[in-house]
Amino acid sequence: MTRSELIAQIRNKRSFLCVGLDTDIDKIPAHLLESEDPIFEFNKAIIDATKEYCVAYKPNIAFYECHGPKGWESLRKTLEYIPKTHFTIADAKRGDIGNTSLYYAKTFFETYDFDSLTIAPYMGEDSVTPFTHFKDKWVILLALTSNKGALDFQFTTDLKGEELYKKVLRKSMKWGTPENMMYVVGATRAEGIAEVRKLVPDHFFLVPGLGAQGGSLAEVAQYGWNKDCGLLVNSSRAILYASNGKDFAEKAREEAEKVQLNMAEILKLKGFVK
Amino acid sequence: MTRSELIAQIRNKRSFLCVGLDTDIDKIPAHLLESEDPIFEFNKAIIDATKEYCVAYKPNIAFYECHGPKGWESLRKTLEYIPKTHFTIADAKRGDIGNTSLYYAKTFFETYDFDSLTIAPYMGEDSVTPFTHFKDKWVILLALTSNKGALDFQFTTDLKGEELYKKVLRKSMKWGTPENMMYVVGATRAEGIAEVRKLVPDHFFLVPGLGAQGGSLAEVAQYGWNKDCGLLVNSSRAILYASNGKDFAEKAREEAEKVQLNMAEILKLKGFVK
Repeated sequence: MTRSELIAQIRNKRSFLCVGLDTDIDKIPAHLLESEDPIFEFNKAIIDATKEYCVAYKPNIAFYECHGPKGWESLRKTLEYIPKTHFTIADAKRGDIGNTSLYYAKTFFETYDFDSLTIAPYMGEDSVTPFTHFKDKWVILLALTSNKGALDFQFTTDLKGEELYKKVLRKSMKWGTPENMMYVVGATRAEGIAEVRKLVPDHFFLVPGLGAQGGSLAEVAQYGWNKDCGLLVNSSRAILYASNGKDFAEKAREEAEKVQLNMAEILKLKGFVK
Repeated sequence: MTRSELIAQIRNKRSFLCVGLDTDIDKIPAHLLESEDPIFEFNKAIIDATKEYCVAYKPNIAFYECHGPKGWESLRKTLEYIPKTHFTIADAKRGDIGNTSLYYAKTFFETYDFDSLTIAPYMGEDSVTPFTHFKDKWVILLALTSNKGALDFQFTTDLKGEELYKKVLRKSMKWGTPENMMYVVGATRAEGIAEVRKLVPDHFFLVPGLGAQGGSLAEVAQYGWNKDCGLLVNSSRAILYASNGKDFAEKAREEAEKVQLNMAEILKLKGFVK
């Protein structure tokens, strides 16, 4: 998907919600466990219930690969079930030497037709650029993550006074363009989002950490907004596990709609939609 | 596998060689492509040819997952074929928030029964510790990688004069023990290996970058040695693709034996074996 197509979807849906498909076999409703592929059945119901309210889906690959080949098959079916109007993110956090990264790119952009893939920056330029040579495919690079451990290394300040996550942003901006690169910026660090936006005016941010992790949508929009919206805000557990009964899809729909209504309000206030 | 079992294998085999199973469908001999599972057939022949000369095998997960479920099946068969005497490393470079990392741990330690898994440190403590709670399983954390991109961030010096890779070492040493944690230290950075060994006297290092990437075994041993050997030195392409004809396994055997003889010499010089 191209950037302009993504922006059109945001206007059209009045939403910049990404639904994270962290589909945990231990958390999905009991009545689904008897079906042949409970993970796919759960995802199918969640997609049907939420597709009207979101512009992106983000399967978290750990929850699929832990089931072996069967899990990858659930992932493939899920990806095929997601409407072509929705941006798809493989949340895989890969990254290796160039020759290996190319095979990770082939995995997620060819074997599986995802629009984008999350990547860890520790190994530097040649671990990231192999992902930038696929037409209409995106790299989403970790910059400032939403977890506690982000404090261990990402805020390390170098001799020039630059924090590591800023150095990651500054250097990596040359490895791609706002048309094929986004950044992960956690919702739990509102002040960080503002700092990142100053350095990176044009790129989209993928913002995890809303809901279960405690981030606030209003703050994310206040600090992360750019002229094209520039935000994909993810919610996983709050939507997926709004109920663990037979009404899980209906409750997920309600939760997604609630977020979407907040987003529509923000988009209106910003003058992005009427 | 426990640390003492690994050390016993090194003495027994007079080798600290790890064979990297970066099994690239575009590079394996043409006559194998007609078999039902060329990747497994190739690995089987390589394992048969090299098991006498090495103590560890390291499948590079990118080369399996790019084939979808079939690739994961080749991986499972490969892992089952590796003798129990050999230490197994899933070179997957995973790492995510704690809840997700736990599922990556389940993937590689339960669904697949690997002894160890490579992990990227960017997301900090809670992305690493979920891997340390599995009995006799190991985390192998990226510290100083062998690629050019290592220069982008890993040598960033902070206000206290500490380089990022050293900070990763210092902090992460508290997240595990020398019994369940190793570090990736690239063979292409001999001076770096010496620095790492000063900071981390007891841990094993997994050392990639020999051969195709240009590292030297003598330098690695000179700078990385500790009282228990403390080294697993990986070679992938130089062994796997020593020939692309029908004699590939025989040529791989010769190449592995050549490295093992060098290693036996080093182990003797160090007084580790007689």
